[in-house]
Amino acid sequence: MKASLWVAEGDRNVVQVIDQRYLPFETRIFEIRTVDQACYAIREMVVRGAPLIGVTAAYGMYLAAFNSNDRNLDGAMVQAEDALNATRPTAVNLFRMTRRMAATYKQNRQNPEVLSVLFLEAEQIRKEEIEACRLIGEHGLPLIRDIYSGKNGQTVHILTHCNAGWLACVEWGTATAPIYLAHQMGIPIHVWVDETRPRNQGARLTAYELGLAGVPHTIIPDNAGGHLMQKGMVDMVITGSDRTTRNGDVANKIGTYLKAVAAADNGIPFYVALPSSTFDLELENGLDSIPVEERDPSEVSFAEGWNGESISSVRIIPEKSPVANYGFDITPARLVTMLITEKGLCKPDEKSIVALINTDNE
Amino acid sequence: MKASLWVAEGDRNVVQVIDQRYLPFETRIFEIRTVDQACYAIREMVVRGAPLIGVTAAYGMYLAAFNSNDRNLDGAMVQAEDALNATRPTAVNLFRMTRRMAATYKQNRQNPEVLSVLFLEAEQIRKEEIEACRLIGEHGLPLIRDIYSGKNGQTVHILTHCNAGWLACVEWGTATAPIYLAHQMGIPIHVWVDETRPRNQGARLTAYELGLAGVPHTIIPDNAGGHLMQKGMVDMVITGSDRTTRNGDVANKIGTYLKAVAAADNGIPFYVALPSSTFDLELENGLDSIPVEERDPSEVSFAEGWNGESISSVRIIPEKSPVANYGFDITPARLVTMLITEKGLCKPDEKSIVALINTDNE
Repeated sequence: MKASLWVAEGDRNVVQVIDQRYLPFETRIFEIRTVDQACYAIREMVVRGAPLIGVTAAYGMYLAAFNSNDRNLDGAMVQAEDALNATRPTAVNLFRMTRRMAATYKQNRQNPEVLSVLFLEAEQIRKEEIEACRLIGEHGLPLIRDIYSGKNGQTVHILTHCNAGWLACVEWGTATAPIYLAHQMGIPIHVWVDETRPRNQGARLTAYELGLAGVPHTIIPDNAGGHLMQKGMVDMVITGSDRTTRNGDVANKIGTYLKAVAAADNGIPFYVALPSSTFDLELENGLDSIPVEERDPSEVSFAEGWNGESISSVRIIPEKSPVANYGFDITPARLVTMLITEKGLCKPDEKSIVALINTDNE
Repeated sequence: MKASLWVAEGDRNVVQVIDQRYLPFETRIFEIRTVDQACYAIREMVVRGAPLIGVTAAYGMYLAAFNSNDRNLDGAMVQAEDALNATRPTAVNLFRMTRRMAATYKQNRQNPEVLSVLFLEAEQIRKEEIEACRLIGEHGLPLIRDIYSGKNGQTVHILTHCNAGWLACVEWGTATAPIYLAHQMGIPIHVWVDETRPRNQGARLTAYELGLAGVPHTIIPDNAGGHLMQKGMVDMVITGSDRTTRNGDVANKIGTYLKAVAAADNGIPFYVALPSSTFDLELENGLDSIPVEERDPSEVSFAEGWNGESISSVRIIPEKSPVANYGFDITPARLVTMLITEKGLCKPDEKSIVALINTDNE
């Protein structure tokens, strides 16, 4: 299985990530040696995707400790947590993992092996996310298999939005985990990939991932999904989530809500795959309380791609027209058929979510 | 009022159009002297928009007659109608106007003045479309004024998809006619402009039009409209139509359906503005019977824009990923609040539409 992040061979103080800003046109490795570089990587979307942001932040906390040279380690850790938390507002994994690393630090600050403890905690977080994704695949697979068994041998068509693949996680991905597993099991599947403007994570990253794995797929403009659903060309939708609240409201990439409301209008199941680290039980509901990131207008005014020689940008709007660029939207729980987590399937309601969180992994 | 098409000054055998492939980056005029050039202009989207396609085709029929030099004029007219009808499948205005010109020809084929008659018929079609758009503005204006009167002086926010402005018609536009009129009357309005992938007619053409007219507007990715509706930032939606069936189903640019279903989910009125030439009473319903054009995949795989010196394209997807490019979708009548036509407002149902068509213009 491909990975989006790993510790450099022979040097645990260097974290290497795929620089996702250059995919699918160039494969470049970005090295993170300091907490500042971890912040840069998250803010500038060298890495993105809620689980991967969380894992990167965990190593960032470790690197803050490693580079502090023991001078005011307490202050360094507080500063690191603040700096990492300030990078992006929507993904809850970020805050959860910096908090967890800060707590581990506090419990071990007198321990002469505190650096090793922090490194191992970041490693543990990385491994937990990988295992969570693998389990999401196992729990999601029967949903695909059930649809397949009703299709008389025909291909199962799955629509996905944005990238919730291994590039958004570490391995497997969330929304893609059941897809990869179904493909490995020989179930004939085909994925409609929303291009996902403005940053085109679908067209650039999900299509790249599926292509590498040999999974049949077709890139479509974000406008096309409703038409495909009306024409019976979509059997199910699976997306990821950046944050899911106590009542089952799902924050995810802008445009997710439009696909959810169209799926409901056409009687098509709409699944959200997420590790339990993406739940935010402190928020009662999403529409009122999840902060939605507004990003740089240039992501909308310019399109970035390959000009034959290098990555370059062209302006695609009139020079003086204003632009708005909301990063996420909230899909209300009523439009979500089921949540797929590492602990099993879960209805999108408070009772089921709280019970799930309090369950041990199987 | 700006125009998208006109007869060249001093030479009625040359039709000049704005070459919309270069907007908003360059303003170029394209000259149509033959029916082949009219076909090229429609097929390659030098001109686009259902009403403008119809008007261009009407002049194309005249130019076919003019250039035939009397050698087998009958055959030339049949060929011209077939060639024009083959350019694009979805907009019904095209077929309606070529049929009307063919009928005018048949009635006047023995008339020594047949060329003049055909030219005047094309002129008449152009003027009718302009007047229809102006009247759509007058009938749509009260809808905006009503919302404004309930907003305590606050700005009315209107979302539109694709370009249904004067660039899609000849003057005024359809969806934009009430918007331009409201702006002229001093009603504070602001337009959310869907960029409208893959060809970006919203970001390129609607934003250009609104900018020229000084109408406040903001370009958004197609993914954003649902979020804005959920947040109470959209008061109404107005789009155009490429073909509307007897039962009120609306074919329009791909993605329109997604906005309509989201508007319904949020209790926001969804209006469709169209001249009655866009109705197709021969089709009982849209979902089953309107052919949806599939266009070149390169429209999705490449983004076209301004590189600082010229218009250029960059590839925005992995080299080997397949693409699908459906041009239109069908919005079912149940999601349409009201049709705005030159003959007045009309409920999207068979009885109302048939009655409307049989009404004389007021």
